[in-house]
Amino acid sequence: MVKVAVIGASGYTGLELIRLLALHPEVEITHITSRQYDGENISTVFPSLAGVVSLSCEAVDVAKISATADFVFTALPHKTAMNVVPGFLNHGCRVVDLSADYRLQDVAVYEQWYQAHSSPELLTEAVYGLPELGRKRIKTARLVANPGCYPTSVALALAPLLQHSVIDHSTLIVDSKSGASGAGREAKTASLFCEVNEGFKAYSVGCHRHTPEIEQTLSSLAGEEVVVNFTPHLLPVSRGILSTCYARLSQSIDQLSLQELYETFYQDDKFVRVLPEGHLPNVAYVKGSNYADVGFVIDERTQRIIVVSAIDNLVKGAAGQAIQNMNIMLGLPEEKGLCGVPLFP
Amino acid sequence: MVKVAVIGASGYTGLELIRLLALHPEVEITHITSRQYDGENISTVFPSLAGVVSLSCEAVDVAKISATADFVFTALPHKTAMNVVPGFLNHGCRVVDLSADYRLQDVAVYEQWYQAHSSPELLTEAVYGLPELGRKRIKTARLVANPGCYPTSVALALAPLLQHSVIDHSTLIVDSKSGASGAGREAKTASLFCEVNEGFKAYSVGCHRHTPEIEQTLSSLAGEEVVVNFTPHLLPVSRGILSTCYARLSQSIDQLSLQELYETFYQDDKFVRVLPEGHLPNVAYVKGSNYADVGFVIDERTQRIIVVSAIDNLVKGAAGQAIQNMNIMLGLPEEKGLCGVPLFP
Amino acid sequence: MVKVAVIGASGYTGLELIRLLALHPEVEITHITSRQYDGENISTVFPSLAGVVSLSCEAVDVAKISATADFVFTALPHKTAMNVVPGFLNHGCRVVDLSADYRLQDVAVYEQWYQAHSSPELLTEAVYGLPELGRKRIKTARLVANPGCYPTSVALALAPLLQHSVIDHSTLIVDSKSGASGAGREAKTASLFCEVNEGFKAYSVGCHRHTPEIEQTLSSLAGEEVVVNFTPHLLPVSRGILSTCYARLSQSIDQLSLQELYETFYQDDKFVRVLPEGHLPNVAYVKGSNYADVGFVIDERTQRIIVVSAIDNLVKGAAGQAIQNMNIMLGLPEEKGLCGVPLFP
Amino acid sequence: MVKVAVIGASGYTGLELIRLLALHPEVEITHITSRQYDGENISTVFPSLAGVVSLSCEAVDVAKISATADFVFTALPHKTAMNVVPGFLNHGCRVVDLSADYRLQDVAVYEQWYQAHSSPELLTEAVYGLPELGRKRIKTARLVANPGCYPTSVALALAPLLQHSVIDHSTLIVDSKSGASGAGREAKTASLFCEVNEGFKAYSVGCHRHTPEIEQTLSSLAGEEVVVNFTPHLLPVSRGILSTCYARLSQSIDQLSLQELYETFYQDDKFVRVLPEGHLPNVAYVKGSNYADVGFVIDERTQRIIVVSAIDNLVKGAAGQAIQNMNIMLGLPEEKGLCGVPLFP
Repeated sequence: MVKVAVIGASGYTGLELIRLLALHPEVEITHITSRQYDGENISTVFPSLAGVVSLSCEAVDVAKISATADFVFTALPHKTAMNVVPGFLNHGCRVVDLSADYRLQDVAVYEQWYQAHSSPELLTEAVYGLPELGRKRIKTARLVANPGCYPTSVALALAPLLQHSVIDHSTLIVDSKSGASGAGREAKTASLFCEVNEGFKAYSVGCHRHTPEIEQTLSSLAGEEVVVNFTPHLLPVSRGILSTCYARLSQSIDQLSLQELYETFYQDDKFVRVLPEGHLPNVAYVKGSNYADVGFVIDERTQRIIVVSAIDNLVKGAAGQAIQNMNIMLGLPEEKGLCGVPLFP
Repeated sequence: MVKVAVIGASGYTGLELIRLLALHPEVEITHITSRQYDGENISTVFPSLAGVVSLSCEAVDVAKISATADFVFTALPHKTAMNVVPGFLNHGCRVVDLSADYRLQDVAVYEQWYQAHSSPELLTEAVYGLPELGRKRIKTARLVANPGCYPTSVALALAPLLQHSVIDHSTLIVDSKSGASGAGREAKTASLFCEVNEGFKAYSVGCHRHTPEIEQTLSSLAGEEVVVNFTPHLLPVSRGILSTCYARLSQSIDQLSLQELYETFYQDDKFVRVLPEGHLPNVAYVKGSNYADVGFVIDERTQRIIVVSAIDNLVKGAAGQAIQNMNIMLGLPEEKGLCGVPLFP
Repeated sequence: MVKVAVIGASGYTGLELIRLLALHPEVEITHITSRQYDGENISTVFPSLAGVVSLSCEAVDVAKISATADFVFTALPHKTAMNVVPGFLNHGCRVVDLSADYRLQDVAVYEQWYQAHSSPELLTEAVYGLPELGRKRIKTARLVANPGCYPTSVALALAPLLQHSVIDHSTLIVDSKSGASGAGREAKTASLFCEVNEGFKAYSVGCHRHTPEIEQTLSSLAGEEVVVNFTPHLLPVSRGILSTCYARLSQSIDQLSLQELYETFYQDDKFVRVLPEGHLPNVAYVKGSNYADVGFVIDERTQRIIVVSAIDNLVKGAAGQAIQNMNIMLGLPEEKGLCGVPLFP
Repeated sequence: MVKVAVIGASGYTGLELIRLLALHPEVEITHITSRQYDGENISTVFPSLAGVVSLSCEAVDVAKISATADFVFTALPHKTAMNVVPGFLNHGCRVVDLSADYRLQDVAVYEQWYQAHSSPELLTEAVYGLPELGRKRIKTARLVANPGCYPTSVALALAPLLQHSVIDHSTLIVDSKSGASGAGREAKTASLFCEVNEGFKAYSVGCHRHTPEIEQTLSSLAGEEVVVNFTPHLLPVSRGILSTCYARLSQSIDQLSLQELYETFYQDDKFVRVLPEGHLPNVAYVKGSNYADVGFVIDERTQRIIVVSAIDNLVKGAAGQAIQNMNIMLGLPEEKGLCGVPLFP
């Protein structure tokens, strides 16, 4: 049994970590922290957890938590995360950080899109935790930077195309749509039910902070610099991201060969479901699960490929992937504790 | 490993059975049937199941299915169910029937609210499968009649009150609200997204078929005939039933004593969560799980008690409870395969 | 043209007043106030208003506003309202106050359920503005207290029954359900999309502040003190209240006679639609309109009547009714500016 | 008063026509037809219309209807429309057809994407009714082909760019999202509440029938053949289309100049709201209104422009635009009967 702490338990990602870890057969949760709910039982904060987990929220005390926990998930906002991650590492914990703080390898890029970085030396050490694109380095990492929700959905959609140079990446357009839990649990007017319900909008057009993360991954896959248009939208659903990606084909390839290419690429990846020809993803079919569904269509008229991927932003886009990374780091079967079947309807 | 067949797999209840059984460590699904999708793989019908279950739908062939399956869940509409249940029993299968066909002990009542019954002799044998109100008879039953979704939510809300004669049951009012999956997956105009979304209405007022079932259970608890007003409403959510029950107190009792009474009544029932004082249920907190949450308030001004219960109509109100019944029938731990934590948000 | 000011324009009720007043042929909006958005154009605050209204929000300056406006709608929270209403009256404006501050005639009741009242002398003068239950006093009022959303839905459902003594009011149960706009536009965790969506709960059970208002109106109709159980619930829709009311019949009456009684009672009330036998209200069918739909069923088994009413909480439950009151006060046709057809779907 | 018939009143577009026409001061509705509800009062079919319109649905009898009606809206499915439109024209009616049957000028293109055309001779006469891109021909038309919902949203988003050759149209990508009312009111499993709610998917990728209509309009604006990738998605809202359009700039132009270009282009178009810099459309802000909101961002990093437009698919995307066309044809002010303010929230 690995002893695990969840730092930042009062957000939706924190809750999702607890929901999944509570059922993980090799995990014991020893600490959960929340400044806002310090002293309160987590099952009062989130009544869904009643009868499942009965732990009190604490303030973050790195020394105290490290004394019992071996493994730490930091589910804090960026900037706040880098204030505690180095401490946990120094106390011998292994960490999966779910914030953006250790995802970008180039500190200059980080500081351009976010703010000054207080532990840039860890950027080199941190391993970007997208298992399907590289498990080996995750296995031995001390610090894994858990990918963003949008970047996960985009990377899994496009990886086979970029690695096999099937597309002209200068034509790449990524149109993504996310459910409202992606905006977190902070009390903001823009996140109110009446503001989101029956609505739909684009936001942060041309300036969303996940853009450099997406480009870093795609560039690495392509072996050269990739620049994309990434446009996020807000969906009136609680969970789910669907990314629709467009690119011109750089070589003639038919649907069948491409299908084979995708299936081969993901043949060892239990959590990526390459849909059969004629089928496309729906966020409803991955809800609550760690699956990423991928499907595509070649438009002969325009010689473009349209790839669509769907994930649950709180699972494969956050907590589920974090646990997948933990499993890899601990040498456990990758799907341990992550076998939940999507909840439909 | 028990070999299980799901009869009627193309509705939401059938899907939910498959979702839950797929993860049940003691179960192997051997057959799933659907007239509509005969020959089609269930993961094409419900893409949420891709990578989880890969079985083809068949037509119902009692002899063939009974040859391999030991245990059968019939998730068919009432009337259709009684056409196949006797056959499965005759072939030696044990059956949990999720239809209304074997829930009412009095054939006259059944025939008044539904239609003629073709196997009334089984009504005496069939055991009403609400485990929290009587596990013993379920254990040895050949045929369990799985309770309706509304009746489950109402019975669990009121059982302690009726058994302890705390209320004047002649004043009982039950105001229930159900998510749209309760109406099934049939293509009807009234069930279209645009008809249900942003709407809310009462329906079948004074004549809903779950009324006699509710009264049967409440009467049995009270030890005398109970007649209720039961009013169902349609909620614009996919899953969930919330029942708000009103009755005049027949004796002076305070909130604390009543809290104790409820907690004692359900002390051995893992799936009933009696909420702490000051807390009331929300369907959002039981979604996807087998929990029934119960809370109440005594209104001193009117000397009435208001009890509120919440369940997921597809789980505790159907598939989850059916599996709970199976576990009991097979001598397995009652919560086997049912430990899923509610999916919130 | 009457010159109108909207005090408190940044909430959903303020927005709805502006939406409706903008189309009112006899109204010119001269001022709108909002502390939060002071100086900002209302069409930036609410982009739905772009091209319709172009006014800047101001701070509340009673003297300045009264200098141009003849008529004032105060759409402020209770307690805040009574700080400005007397001033507007003193400056010669007529006022429809949409808060709770002048609804209760008995200051002791107000102070028990709310807080100390700073202008109790106005309680006697203020006229409760439910036109269908008394237009005459509204006509000449200087100050109209616009009814609460729940009380409107309940009073219109029950008025014919109480006035004709058809029910035993000691058995009255009112189970109401409201859309999320009823909670206002304040940034609270409990009002976030992810907290409300796919959820449903009762709240303020036994202690909601609309209870004494409901009882005041029902008592006045019955000619004796009426005490009710009123239980509000939160619906995952933006707009709409549905109230389901239960009472025992105190005399034998059939559906047809009751239908006639309702139709006669409301024969001059354009905004109350008594539904034909066999039909019941749905909040979806009144959305955006000033209609109150009423339908009922007599349950012969229990000798109870179940009356259901539906309104749009922001229109007939707030802004629409306020304008209806203004029309009456100004001697305009009651439906002036309120002819919008419900938006379905 | 113009005497108007609505052919095909039982769909959502038919209902929306009635909702709007009922308030149009120059219109009298004389006939509404519905095969499905023949003989039924429309206010029973759609209870939202109770108290507003009281007409019985009839079967389509061209001669009879033409005897009283001067103006006809055909809100029928494609193929069905062309069976009746020529008849109404022959009987002297002017017609706005809301189907796809007369939108494409090239019969070969129509027959490639739809089916054989039975009145191809009318394709030359029919005027494509997008008023903002050409009112003159609409004014005198006998038959106006009302644009599709998606094509309206796309054309209004892109018209200024194409007419001014600001973009390289070979790079055009159109990613559109529509509410569920776009799929009509037919009882289909895929349109059920539980299938759409909490879901989001792309559909008809590379083969949606609105593609040639979009290309026809864009080509006409560009003065040369334009081919686009058009990808529709299904949003879990009742109303609204949001189109996100991407293209590479073919000349250097800054946000301010482009803002001016858009504002100038639409300066006489009351129903197109060009949003101020920094603001982007949301379907929630046009709901129930005839507005098309347009906003854009230039992404300097990629030299692409992202234009976003939002309409209510049932109003500007169907019934509202049809009435706008009628107003033009009859020489009425274009906004007559269409002044409804968007319903938010």
